[in-house]
Amino acid sequence: MLIVADENIPLLDRFFDEIGSIRRVAGREMEPQDVADADILLVRSVTRVDRHLLEGSRVKFVGTATIGTDHVDVDWLAEQGIAFASAPGCNAASVAEYVLSVLSIHAEERGEDDWSDLSVGIIGAGNVGQALGRRLTRLGFTVKISDPPRQRIEGEGGFCDLEDVLACDIVTLHTPLTQDGDYPTHHLLNADRLRALTGRQLLINTSRGGVVDTQALLARLQAGDAPQVVLDVWEGEPGVDPDLARAVWLMTPHIAGYSLEGKVGGTEMIYRALCHFLGLPARKQAGQFMADPALSKLSFTSSATALDAAHVAIRACYDVRRDAARYRRVLALPEDGRARAFDAMRRDYPVRREFSSVKIQLKGGAKELQQVFKALEFKLKV
Amino acid sequence: MLIVADENIPLLDRFFDEIGSIRRVAGREMEPQDVADADILLVRSVTRVDRHLLEGSRVKFVGTATIGTDHVDVDWLAEQGIAFASAPGCNAASVAEYVLSVLSIHAEERGEDDWSDLSVGIIGAGNVGQALGRRLTRLGFTVKISDPPRQRIEGEGGFCDLEDVLACDIVTLHTPLTQDGDYPTHHLLNADRLRALTGRQLLINTSRGGVVDTQALLARLQAGDAPQVVLDVWEGEPGVDPDLARAVWLMTPHIAGYSLEGKVGGTEMIYRALCHFLGLPARKQAGQFMADPALSKLSFTSSATALDAAHVAIRACYDVRRDAARYRRVLALPEDGRARAFDAMRRDYPVRREFSSVKIQLKGGAKELQQVFKALEFKLKV
Ligand SMILES: NC(=O)c1ccc[n+]([C@@H]2O[C@H](COP(=O)([O-])OP(=O)(O)OC[C@H]3O[C@@H](n4cnc5c(N)ncnc54)[C@H](O)[C@@H]3O)[C@@H](O)[C@H]2O)c1
Ligand SMILES: NC(=O)c1ccc[n+]([C@@H]2O[C@H](COP(=O)([O-])OP(=O)(O)OC[C@H]3O[C@@H](n4cnc5c(N)ncnc54)[C@H](O)[C@@H]3O)[C@@H](O)[C@H]2O)c1
Repeated sequence: MLIVADENIPLLDRFFDEIGSIRRVAGREMEPQDVADADILLVRSVTRVDRHLLEGSRVKFVGTATIGTDHVDVDWLAEQGIAFASAPGCNAASVAEYVLSVLSIHAEERGEDDWSDLSVGIIGAGNVGQALGRRLTRLGFTVKISDPPRQRIEGEGGFCDLEDVLACDIVTLHTPLTQDGDYPTHHLLNADRLRALTGRQLLINTSRGGVVDTQALLARLQAGDAPQVVLDVWEGEPGVDPDLARAVWLMTPHIAGYSLEGKVGGTEMIYRALCHFLGLPARKQAGQFMADPALSKLSFTSSATALDAAHVAIRACYDVRRDAARYRRVLALPEDGRARAFDAMRRDYPVRREFSSVKIQLKGGAKELQQVFKALEFKLKV
Repeated sequence: MLIVADENIPLLDRFFDEIGSIRRVAGREMEPQDVADADILLVRSVTRVDRHLLEGSRVKFVGTATIGTDHVDVDWLAEQGIAFASAPGCNAASVAEYVLSVLSIHAEERGEDDWSDLSVGIIGAGNVGQALGRRLTRLGFTVKISDPPRQRIEGEGGFCDLEDVLACDIVTLHTPLTQDGDYPTHHLLNADRLRALTGRQLLINTSRGGVVDTQALLARLQAGDAPQVVLDVWEGEPGVDPDLARAVWLMTPHIAGYSLEGKVGGTEMIYRALCHFLGLPARKQAGQFMADPALSKLSFTSSATALDAAHVAIRACYDVRRDAARYRRVLALPEDGRARAFDAMRRDYPVRREFSSVKIQLKGGAKELQQVFKALEFKLKV
């Protein structure tokens, strides 16, 4: 069995070497002749998978180790009876932890005694939005959710109007970027909605740059009583408007989802789907192949307060200011240098581990501490 | 035996209750009648100890749980044959760790791959300057020291000219504030010397506000290519020039020395001096009376790099940005509110523990990690 795969899929050999022989190809340069004799094709987002690439090939299964499927013509694959799998939600925890890191630092800057006194509006409650909402709810935050597509299917319960959600202390975006359909998200945050935000609010975008009208956002930031803004995604990235970058509070180059667990989890998901397709047992797990996390354990005593301990642990595991500081320095470069640096920061992103990789040991552990660390989904040892 | 003591001396009872009976007095309001029948007087910096307070009393021993002795007329005590003890160096580690926390964050902002590539100029190598210099040297920093009073006694070896020290990447002040003598430090950093600093330099003052000419510093910060500045001490504190505060990078309200170990260490030092004076064994140690630190242990694996692990540990133990964020919010208050908030932040300062209270566990511990944590004076467990 021949597997043709993007050479940048993490742990490719570890997962797939027992299933077939692997031909590694640069994802951006994949051509019909590379895949003509393949049984299985494994890609990332940089390879366009469609009739042009696959017509006449032997490929029976396509897997993309990404949450997005924009680069795949899924309708054509279905017509041809080619099985298809993607990796929905593989980096949901990573993005949720990015947002929690932002909230932790925001609470410190604002001097919130109890950060969970704040309300958080989540726009889009799919894999990421739900992962975040679950943790925030358990932490005691007031969480309001807008997701009209889900609301239409699931009914009113649990969903709020967009305008209510936009009035929360913190507003965080987790929709796909869509131009059509009943609920398009392109420029969902337009000039009017941005105008309604105030200086006591924080807006976080880790979804897609185009969900916010960039020109309107810049104008809003330059007007009075502007909200604080955190951007991980940018309209036109890797090009980034330097004026906008300077006006936001924290900015990162589309790395919210870049935890090691997220990356490797994508490979695991398509591996499991392929095993299922082939009728093979799926014996391998991502955990087996990951090195120990650099920081493996934090021990707190009964002198600790839940909130302080949570902030220490979150930041010790992932402090978004580090990525923001690296990216801020890029702004001093000329325009093409900035775009190259954006891509380079993504390509060379250092190993970042999720909360679940860090053991938290509580000595004389108060209930409250246990609850907080459970809510944050650290690995708890009492 | 009657001990009259400032009620705010930490762990007063724990240390002194077996030595005599204790009369607790508000330090700022101590009057001759409070101490007339005392054998021993224990103060902090807010009580003026002189002939006016003590003439005609029975006091035979005065202890101040502070490093400074400006509030004590030591010559008059000596004339009267009254024994005297202070607590030099008790908060040296605390200040050194404040500076290390600043350097850790500065390295992140500047994107130094290896922070120890930087040179650090230490002005004043007494208890604090030496504690800092020792750690930095072991960490591999280039350290240059200016201390003309010590140089005169100890000879040239190891000391540099002030101008050399002021050319270092980082310049940090650790002298007392003196107006007279051969090497007065009042406005040691004057307009000329501040002009010579550039935008690639970082200036840290944790000594006394008056060692820097505040007006000249403000002018320097408003001119081009200004150095980054971190201030813990201020001319005229608790009053602080809000323009200056806004122009510096990090600012804190004179809390660099406020670790719990530093505060309790001051009590221990005068306890030991008193035991020595009375010919009693000094059985008590500060460690016995301190609660467990909230964060008791950090475990790193062989996946960790020394530098990353050091930064995580330093900030998990003490992140100066937290104090800076709290104090920055104070700037929004009216003038007298700001001064009150300065004092209130000092009075209500949260428990802060020193690196030595945190165990570092290294699994498969590389030599380099061991060295870094030893240099930082964490409690190492291999
Ligand atoms: N920054 C990163 O590194 C990173 C990482 C992962 C995901 N993402 C992005 O985050 C977003 C969410 O990812 P996901 O995996 O949760 O996607 P998902 O498809 O699982 O969930 C998206 C949710 O948005 C809802 N939605 C659609 N239109 C909406 C509208 N108009 N208003 C409100 N809700 C709407 C959908 O019903 C769905 O529940 C996507 O844009 C994804 O590309 C970014
Ligand atoms: N910010 C805080 O919370 C905090 C805490 C502790 C100490 N301090 C201050 O830090 C400073 C240092 O404290 P310490 O305990 O190390 O004092 P120290 O007396 O032990 O050391 C001071 C050193 O400065 C040297 N010195 C004097 N004049 C000098 C000059 N003109 N140039 C260079 N060096 C000179 C002395 O020779 C001495 O070695 C003091 O001003 C102290 O009040 C502040």
